Amino acid sequence: MSKTNAGRFFEDYSIGQVIEHAVPRTMSGGERSLYHALYPARHALHSSDDFARDCGLHEAPLDDLILFHMVFGKTVPDISLNAVANLGYAEGRFLKPVYLGDTLSARSEVIGLKENSNGKTGIVWVRTTGEDQFGGPILSYVRWVMVRKRDLTAAAPETVIPDLSGSVSPADLVVPEGLSFEKYNFIHAGESHRMSDYEVGEQIDHVDGVTIEEAEHMMATRLWQNTAKVHFDSTARPDGRRLIYGGHVISMARALSFNGLANAQMIVGLNGGAHANPCFSGDTITAWSEVLDKAETDAPGIGAIRLRLVAQRSGATAFSLKGDDGKYLPDVFLDLDYWALMPL
Amino acid sequence: MSKTNAGRFFEDYSIGQVIEHAVPRTMSGGERSLYHALYPARHALHSSDDFARDCGLHEAPLDDLILFHMVFGKTVPDISLNAVANLGYAEGRFLKPVYLGDTLSARSEVIGLKENSNGKTGIVWVRTTGEDQFGGPILSYVRWVMVRKRDLTAAAPETVIPDLSGSVSPADLVVPEGLSFEKYNFIHAGESHRMSDYEVGEQIDHVDGVTIEEAEHMMATRLWQNTAKVHFDSTARPDGRRLIYGGHVISMARALSFNGLANAQMIVGLNGGAHANPCFSGDTITAWSEVLDKAETDAPGIGAIRLRLVAQRSGATAFSLKGDDGKYLPDVFLDLDYWALMPL
Amino acid sequence: MSKTNAGRFFEDYSIGQVIEHAVPRTMSGGERSLYHALYPARHALHSSDDFARDCGLHEAPLDDLILFHMVFGKTVPDISLNAVANLGYAEGRFLKPVYLGDTLSARSEVIGLKENSNGKTGIVWVRTTGEDQFGGPILSYVRWVMVRKRDLTAAAPETVIPDLSGSVSPADLVVPEGLSFEKYNFIHAGESHRMSDYEVGEQIDHVDGVTIEEAEHMMATRLWQNTAKVHFDSTARPDGRRLIYGGHVISMARALSFNGLANAQMIVGLNGGAHANPCFSGDTITAWSEVLDKAETDAPGIGAIRLRLVAQRSGATAFSLKGDDGKYLPDVFLDLDYWALMPL
Repeated sequence: MSKTNAGRFFEDYSIGQVIEHAVPRTMSGGERSLYHALYPARHALHSSDDFARDCGLHEAPLDDLILFHMVFGKTVPDISLNAVANLGYAEGRFLKPVYLGDTLSARSEVIGLKENSNGKTGIVWVRTTGEDQFGGPILSYVRWVMVRKRDLTAAAPETVIPDLSGSVSPADLVVPEGLSFEKYNFIHAGESHRMSDYEVGEQIDHVDGVTIEEAEHMMATRLWQNTAKVHFDSTARPDGRRLIYGGHVISMARALSFNGLANAQMIVGLNGGAHANPCFSGDTITAWSEVLDKAETDAPGIGAIRLRLVAQRSGATAFSLKGDDGKYLPDVFLDLDYWALMPL
Repeated sequence: MSKTNAGRFFEDYSIGQVIEHAVPRTMSGGERSLYHALYPARHALHSSDDFARDCGLHEAPLDDLILFHMVFGKTVPDISLNAVANLGYAEGRFLKPVYLGDTLSARSEVIGLKENSNGKTGIVWVRTTGEDQFGGPILSYVRWVMVRKRDLTAAAPETVIPDLSGSVSPADLVVPEGLSFEKYNFIHAGESHRMSDYEVGEQIDHVDGVTIEEAEHMMATRLWQNTAKVHFDSTARPDGRRLIYGGHVISMARALSFNGLANAQMIVGLNGGAHANPCFSGDTITAWSEVLDKAETDAPGIGAIRLRLVAQRSGATAFSLKGDDGKYLPDVFLDLDYWALMPL
Repeated sequence: MSKTNAGRFFEDYSIGQVIEHAVPRTMSGGERSLYHALYPARHALHSSDDFARDCGLHEAPLDDLILFHMVFGKTVPDISLNAVANLGYAEGRFLKPVYLGDTLSARSEVIGLKENSNGKTGIVWVRTTGEDQFGGPILSYVRWVMVRKRDLTAAAPETVIPDLSGSVSPADLVVPEGLSFEKYNFIHAGESHRMSDYEVGEQIDHVDGVTIEEAEHMMATRLWQNTAKVHFDSTARPDGRRLIYGGHVISMARALSFNGLANAQMIVGLNGGAHANPCFSGDTITAWSEVLDKAETDAPGIGAIRLRLVAQRSGATAFSLKGDDGKYLPDVFLDLDYWALMPL
């Protein structure tokens, strides 16, 4: 019997199946500083214990996307090792901040299955939950991927397509316990714009660009213990290129968006996202955002802002997303839709 | 109104103006280990808690240049985003060691202004102070930069040129409270040379060289939350090259100087410095030092040694600095003048 | 007198000589997270405090190869600065787990000397011991290197060739105090295979590959404070290439071996190893293992598995090691022989 993990194929999934993912991970200051070395991340709540204390937390929580990547990475050997495509995200909610010393684990439940008409692949929907050492959920999201069948003659499962929200309702967003923006230090945060300064429909060009390096995206992707071969092995693709983990682009774009959205401190909801085109070493990423919605929360001084975050190739026209054919333009890498907390 | 930071222009500065910089940062073991991964840093006082305890400190403080870069990085969005050139440093003093868990912030006061005769740019002098979470200063230095005017018709300010010392007087150097070199372990430190073994005028070729990589200088520069576009975006310059943050060269040269100056444990004064020529990925850096001065301190067993540290291209003649025209030779990257503490 | 370290030459070593190596180092979460960013390391015992507690330890110890590299790095300035070749390892034993906050130092004793017949070089055998801040040994191994003579007319020392074991006897392996695999969580560990599932002689192709980058191997090698010039300076070799530290290949191969040997949790013995061919940036490393032996231990639920771990170039035939001439095939980078602890 082969000892190595060949990954699951489409016929290995069934509705209601719960997969507990391997390799829990204890976080330290090392993960935080590597995140700050790999991305131009500057949101003050994740950078300074003092700033976090002024916001009612006992110390700075880890950047929310660290949690996303850590949880996502754990799912790769079980969910996407044989995936042909990462099709989408929905209903993502950040449920509890994570601090240095916390240990993260993850599990996924299969909530949807649909064999494709070609009989060679199928779509698998999973709801993935990250947990800390107390068993409490810290993050939950739905992801769907197209997965190969091992045995093309295997019978198709009953089709179940989950009923997913187009976006997380503001009422379902979780504001961390104790968080308050009433003593928020705008100078330390880096910008003076409150949520009331942003209009729905407003677009922001984040100006800065970063050229991507092989060593950086591989270090990032390994840090999340993401094992997908295409990110690391230049002999895995005919063109000799290493495909960059889509999450690397998400973090790069989010960090670039500091310039104009420095006060969108914490991501609390992930409404959807598409990796529109592949990104490779040598590409230079720029980013723009659009304000999609605004909402209040019950927490003192804290609003929620819904943002579209787009990563694209340097030189591409800002605020262009799709062509006349409804398809993403070739220079667009990422189209992400999320909720963040911001001072009112 | 644009939400992004366009940076300050020359006419935005006025004498006496105090700018509190954004994004305080809490330090962890991650910053230290990244420093040790990015530079061949080996000074024992910053590497080992045990060595530090034998020197009277409760644990190993962070490498002093980490403090410099962290503070410098915070000033970039406010001071040098529209800078044409980084002209010099003076009166730098390290005032208090920083330990894991400390939170750094920074402010700058404008102490000099002089519009250039071309009417397009001007020189701004600032005294920058880094502070820890207790509000105590940990570092102070003067830096001057040439900054563009936004509005060429804006009136020139009154010229104020600060009266700066050519070097920090030994009496003004701050030895960390409790520091003692009476139980100094020369074997653990790596070399046997005391301050009395060095002669003023002595020159040391540090032998080793390091070839610079894009991923490394970008990770370093991001770690300091330095946002200057030219370091990250290969589309920002016509030649497609990313300019390396001058501080990366400072740290590389200082770390290379371990070989011959292993006992110059702690930088306590920064007398001046010039980034003589730009450095790019692929360049190989070597370093040499010259002993400029020696002084005693009140602390037990501790002397201060004043050193010129030069970084240059591998293959360039050691101990050559300037040509007959008084200009730096083209292979010189850095000419730094600093005080360090060393066992007597 | 030159202040820089020229390293020791063959005639500087004598039997019984003990060399205390420089620069002790205190470990933090930064070293661990960098290890996880540089290698696809996923062994659960080193990743999760909770997993480690279920195995009877108070928290996750650092990856055992971190200890090896840290100790090895300290020896370089004293042992291998003038080495022509790194000839072998033997009798390696990991004696005590190392945790965040521990401080490592190292010493070596010269146990063998043999001048080569050419009169230009000689072989030096040292037994190197790593120690923690309590003075207890944490690691011990024998290494032998070929070192240049400074003075070709120096008399040859008496030849002493140490009597080294071909492998560490299972009875001499040290299982960390308190370690138990009775509550071992195979799901969190990532694979279900117990030691009884492996046959002596079984071979495992670890499937995955990683393409090596300059920035990564240099960061790794610096992290261990290994100062050997050839790893960092592209002007040091006529071909302009930087030779990759052999330990980088060891860690890469060991991490790749997770896929098929996820439960070989802890390295406890290093029987031997050869760096068969040099590795350079751009090479893609794959790995295979062969089960050489199995043994019981006195600890609850814990067996010891002896493994050959081979790193080779992607595309090379798996399980091929040497040619008809008895020499390593040109695509083989590493041939390592070690003992690991595994659930029975």
